Amino acid sequence: MRSVWINGEWFPEAEAKVSVFDRGLLFSQSVYEVVPVIAGRLCNMAYHLARLARSQAVAGIADTTDWQAVFEEAVARNGVTEGRVYLQVTGGSAGDRDFLSPRPAPQPTRIVFTQSGAVVDHPQARSGLRIALKPDLRWNLRSAKTTQLLYAVLMKEEARAAGLDDAWLVEDGRVTEGTSSNAHIIDQRGVLISHPVDRGVLPGVTRICVMEIVRGMGLTVEERPFTPDELYAAREAFCSAASALVLPVVEVDGRTIGDGLPGELTRAIRAAYVERLLQA
Amino acid sequence: MRSVWINGEWFPEAEAKVSVFDRGLLFSQSVYEVVPVIAGRLCNMAYHLARLARSQAVAGIADTTDWQAVFEEAVARNGVTEGRVYLQVTGGSAGDRDFLSPRPAPQPTRIVFTQSGAVVDHPQARSGLRIALKPDLRWNLRSAKTTQLLYAVLMKEEARAAGLDDAWLVEDGRVTEGTSSNAHIIDQRGVLISHPVDRGVLPGVTRICVMEIVRGMGLTVEERPFTPDELYAAREAFCSAASALVLPVVEVDGRTIGDGLPGELTRAIRAAYVERLLQA
Repeated sequence: MRSVWINGEWFPEAEAKVSVFDRGLLFSQSVYEVVPVIAGRLCNMAYHLARLARSQAVAGIADTTDWQAVFEEAVARNGVTEGRVYLQVTGGSAGDRDFLSPRPAPQPTRIVFTQSGAVVDHPQARSGLRIALKPDLRWNLRSAKTTQLLYAVLMKEEARAAGLDDAWLVEDGRVTEGTSSNAHIIDQRGVLISHPVDRGVLPGVTRICVMEIVRGMGLTVEERPFTPDELYAAREAFCSAASALVLPVVEVDGRTIGDGLPGELTRAIRAAYVERLLQA
Repeated sequence: MRSVWINGEWFPEAEAKVSVFDRGLLFSQSVYEVVPVIAGRLCNMAYHLARLARSQAVAGIADTTDWQAVFEEAVARNGVTEGRVYLQVTGGSAGDRDFLSPRPAPQPTRIVFTQSGAVVDHPQARSGLRIALKPDLRWNLRSAKTTQLLYAVLMKEEARAAGLDDAWLVEDGRVTEGTSSNAHIIDQRGVLISHPVDRGVLPGVTRICVMEIVRGMGLTVEERPFTPDELYAAREAFCSAASALVLPVVEVDGRTIGDGLPGELTRAIRAAYVERLLQA
């Protein structure tokens, strides 16, 4: 039985609850982060907390919790050696429903729970992902990591129904990102192409690290959107996300990417990133 | 102290809670309805329940609750003579976080609470609304009434900060709808112009009733999007929503609509709708 942290108190997971009047539940005024844990250590905390602050600013949530101590206690209490810590902050509850929050605003609702599981030895790192392209019909403020995730849920469900692993999203003829990851290709020249970080995609923490690794490997990087045709013709494709790290994409819309196996550079990038996390 | 209904049980409002693992809270896999109560009676239930079923289908939530009985008990227990009943149905909780719902899916979480308050004698029916136009950056499946309402919250907060009552949203140079209402104008010819019901706007229950009333008054109706310029130049403008009914708009982006007072036809439409609800 996990211990879940809510607003400064620890609860057995079955008793971890929030009010039905919580603005996260009623209005999706709510942001989150997922921080990987490897060898019992929290990874990239500073990046995640910086992004959380930016998400909160977009969502109109004021909070200054010292998360480091809470996260460390969550890992210790729940005996997490590998997995992730999940954090959600909402607009809180004023005990009734109104689009406009009372002034002064209610205290934010803050939730932390852990999930144990393999991060480094991820089975899809070996098999690669088979994905489909879907139209990107999400809202337009995607640089904020909000819990408005219904479209991601629906597209993942469509992928599952089609026997696939996931979906990447396309807007105005360009790939934006995966349902819960950033999307990257390596073209036939060996150049890494990745959507620039603007309000159209999430500024991925793993993406930041991947860019550093890729540049360190001497690869050229083009930060620009790519088309489905560029993706189909790519030498390699992969996604990056906090707890999946780096996962190869081996098939898109039934078309094989490269030779249909996880790409050589993708495997090297993942290995370098794992090494970096283990040495952190 | 209100009684709140959750999954078949009644709770004092302070104890009405849902799991932190609820898919409504984590992923906004969650739909809702707001049903007005006038003279102790539920209004337009059949329309609301038909729309709920369509919203659930979009959001992937299977549920067949008999809401009529629950709503009637909610009104009786809470002594509501005028106000509204709020209903929310989520993808439920499987006790952990995963974008993909387990198969079989968990039982949906079902919430009902009431809010007492003036519906017929709404102060803004007399004063009219002063609004601003804002870009419509919401997701694209707006015909489903989901709780992905953060953008509506943000735009209402921007309106409040500017000393205004609300915002209407503009996409591709056309007004789509209000943050929580359908938007309508009556042009200088006396023709009612209203965005057609497609996935770009909510199929408002009040909108259905307004259309019937307007046609019954002998007005011509054009169901098409209108531009900001058509709005600025309109003889009258108004919004429709379940618990606001019909509210005149008297100012848009600092420009007076008509003579700056609630429009004559708008007042007649509201009066006819109130009459219809009282006689139902």
